[in-house]
Amino acid sequence: MFESAELGHQVSKADYEAQVPAVRERLLNAQYELLESRKFSLVVVVGGVDGAGKGDTINLLRSWLDPRHVRVHGMGPPSEDERGRPPIARFWARLPPRGKTAVFMGSWYTAPIVDRVFRRTKPPELDTAMEHVRHFERMLTQERVVLVKLWFHLSKEEQRQRLRRLEKDPKQRWRVTETDWKHFELYDRFRRISARALRETSTDFAPWLVVSGNDARYRQLTVGRAIATALEQALAAPSAPAPAPPVPPSASDVDGLTVLDPLDLSKSIAAKPYRSRLEKLQGELALATRDPKFVSERALVCVFEGADAAGKGGAIRRVAEPLDARICNVVPVAAPTDEEAARPYLWRFWRHIPGRGRVVIFDRSWYGRVLVERVEGFAPPSEWARAYSEINELEEHLVEHGIRVAKLWLQISPEEQLRRFEERQQTGFKQFKITEEDWRNREKAPQYRLAVNDMIERTSTELAPWTLVEAEDKRYARVKVLETILETLSR
Amino acid sequence: MFESAELGHQVSKADYEAQVPAVRERLLNAQYELLESRKFSLVVVVGGVDGAGKGDTINLLRSWLDPRHVRVHGMGPPSEDERGRPPIARFWARLPPRGKTAVFMGSWYTAPIVDRVFRRTKPPELDTAMEHVRHFERMLTQERVVLVKLWFHLSKEEQRQRLRRLEKDPKQRWRVTETDWKHFELYDRFRRISARALRETSTDFAPWLVVSGNDARYRQLTVGRAIATALEQALAAPSAPAPAPPVPPSASDVDGLTVLDPLDLSKSIAAKPYRSRLEKLQGELALATRDPKFVSERALVCVFEGADAAGKGGAIRRVAEPLDARICNVVPVAAPTDEEAARPYLWRFWRHIPGRGRVVIFDRSWYGRVLVERVEGFAPPSEWARAYSEINELEEHLVEHGIRVAKLWLQISPEEQLRRFEERQQTGFKQFKITEEDWRNREKAPQYRLAVNDMIERTSTELAPWTLVEAEDKRYARVKVLETILETLSR
Repeated sequence: MFESAELGHQVSKADYEAQVPAVRERLLNAQYELLESRKFSLVVVVGGVDGAGKGDTINLLRSWLDPRHVRVHGMGPPSEDERGRPPIARFWARLPPRGKTAVFMGSWYTAPIVDRVFRRTKPPELDTAMEHVRHFERMLTQERVVLVKLWFHLSKEEQRQRLRRLEKDPKQRWRVTETDWKHFELYDRFRRISARALRETSTDFAPWLVVSGNDARYRQLTVGRAIATALEQALAAPSAPAPAPPVPPSASDVDGLTVLDPLDLSKSIAAKPYRSRLEKLQGELALATRDPKFVSERALVCVFEGADAAGKGGAIRRVAEPLDARICNVVPVAAPTDEEAARPYLWRFWRHIPGRGRVVIFDRSWYGRVLVERVEGFAPPSEWARAYSEINELEEHLVEHGIRVAKLWLQISPEEQLRRFEERQQTGFKQFKITEEDWRNREKAPQYRLAVNDMIERTSTELAPWTLVEAEDKRYARVKVLETILETLSR
Repeated sequence: MFESAELGHQVSKADYEAQVPAVRERLLNAQYELLESRKFSLVVVVGGVDGAGKGDTINLLRSWLDPRHVRVHGMGPPSEDERGRPPIARFWARLPPRGKTAVFMGSWYTAPIVDRVFRRTKPPELDTAMEHVRHFERMLTQERVVLVKLWFHLSKEEQRQRLRRLEKDPKQRWRVTETDWKHFELYDRFRRISARALRETSTDFAPWLVVSGNDARYRQLTVGRAIATALEQALAAPSAPAPAPPVPPSASDVDGLTVLDPLDLSKSIAAKPYRSRLEKLQGELALATRDPKFVSERALVCVFEGADAAGKGGAIRRVAEPLDARICNVVPVAAPTDEEAARPYLWRFWRHIPGRGRVVIFDRSWYGRVLVERVEGFAPPSEWARAYSEINELEEHLVEHGIRVAKLWLQISPEEQLRRFEERQQTGFKQFKITEEDWRNREKAPQYRLAVNDMIERTSTELAPWTLVEAEDKRYARVKVLETILETLSR
């Protein structure tokens, strides 16, 4: 991994000065073309050993580019708020819109490698973390993020010499701290572990470039050219979507039998037992969210999906009612804002993921990708087909961080839907206006049924299972929704 | 202030049940009309004494509304990140887009009142804080935010009885903490100070409603009706902009003499002294931003304004170059995103205000309101005329929080601008393409000159003065920019 970087690369001053103007011009031209086309965003990941010139090189790179369109994120230890959310969330939050550039100094590699170096984790945990990283980076590149990953390297001898040199210089001495020498003692271990991490994440879609950090001119030219080349190649690539994978096969293709068929929609509950049951369940939910363990370690995400008029709104009300409004946020998923549309698909959901002790209820969710966007053709097969695993990955991040995920599909019959549509057309409330679109969606019921079947099949996981709710009777549905959420919380 | 709230208001169960359905229907109808029209946003401010039913009432209110479009913010003590920014910033960050509702439990009133009660501040400080609040709320209402301010009150006797009652009930005892009794001892003082704060901020555009908290049914109905009425009135109001105030007079009206006229644009500096001076100033800037006091207590905001081709970009580069890219963010101000356009004008700048030890450089800024938006007619006179004081208020918030503000106007002659336009048309870089708009702006030079004059006149304050930079010679301009920023930092 580090063999080439230890060859002793050097660039003479004359060579450097001859080459820099061309690199700068390439960088600027590519940056402005990107800004105009908004074809993708550029994310530069910077890692490596202390003292290999990361900061200086990135500062210089930014001055070679137009600094107005580059954001450099020095990712120190997470803040208190950030610790309340899955570790990847703070990187999601900083993804740039298409057209712009973000540089991460300190990245999703830092904690897994450092934790392993200091033996806070075991080898398999590093491997798992790197697998998450591969997923994340694959998703980014498929969502039009160009990744350039730079690892700044110094050989052990170079590192030793550097620290000695700094210590001798009165003006630079402050730069060398005890931590630096402590890290130096761990050099071999750090080298071995980062080599492993780099090897496992040097993929075709996001390869690493190991940069020898010893010679400033060499590393500056190397980084400048690598970024210019990555930008130029991505700008020149055809902007057609990636070739569509085969549409994933469905177990229902042959006979049309779906997971919705076995549901007994005649299930119901009478008004009186409903009221007492509802009250009891709501009381339990209020208590569960005040439990000290929930407040300090857990959070809850509820995902509501279902056909139009399936009763999502009413069920959500019954869930939100007993909760302290200060800890509970209901997110209705509508068309993306332009800030959302300019970033990877899941960004607009990540921004609502709750911190410790909080509840977020999604009224429709990331599953739109494999439901409405699939059926209506808003997303090409290449996008919705890979969404299943992206979604599983998202939910894994949540659950691993102590966030409980309840996913509820509310099912009604076509006849009941029609009845509710007609009823709504009578009512005064504006939100209940039935639109042309609602009627059109109704005609696509068979396609939706298949899409729901595939969704359940592919995303009902051990960590975050789906619950199918017989919603023909609203009372029955609301009780089952509350029961499911309580069960999810007690898992 | 609290006389009516101590009359012993009560609503019988029968009355309550007779009235609630109508209130709920009014609330829902108004909420959906708001959602559709996006005419304004609703902000509910909740304050008052402990135990007066704030939480319960707001929870109920939210369940009467459609909870998907209401966000309730329990504003506890500020987080570490939040403490790094002016106190008002965290409320700015949570302003809802038009069409939606935010409820603030704990608000911009909390800290000023509590600080005064605990004698951390003196009376004049409370008055100053309340004056800030009046400014803030006036701005909000002018920027299409409807404010409903609810103060929940209990008389001293009611408060005492409530605490005793809770303590006697084993199920409720946990609700009463030592802090509650400590607060009770301060009842009279709290009452006196909050009465003063309320009186000073009960304005025509944002009056307080004091709600007797003793009877749950009374307070619920009172709050529900107050909000329904506020919504209905605002929905029914003509959507025409507020009547235009007279265009503010300008000292240059008579003779056309502006603050730009005395500038000596022949000032210049030769290449060689420029290089050494630049290097020295950049070194000083690097040091100044590494100063421990700057890192832990200060921040820097630089505002660059000037005609097209005045050299803002080049000057910004020279400022950013010596700074660690991780602490410095350059914000090019472009057209607002839709999330920005749906909120009060200054929201899109507040989101970039730096925390401790950081630098933000605005390439164009909030001054767009009184420059391009005024001259091009994008903002009606009613909006740009009041922007001067809104801007002064913004900058006061920054400076009072330890953020240094450097405001730079770069001035060139029309002849030099023409020369640079023509030069740019030759160059290869895309960002330098001259557009039709640039040529049109040129024709409006006299109007811009007047607008600049008024801007300087009205917003060059002691706390945040403007610096006029003779920019005909780029080198001279860059040196003066750096000098100004260094001087600003050493203030």
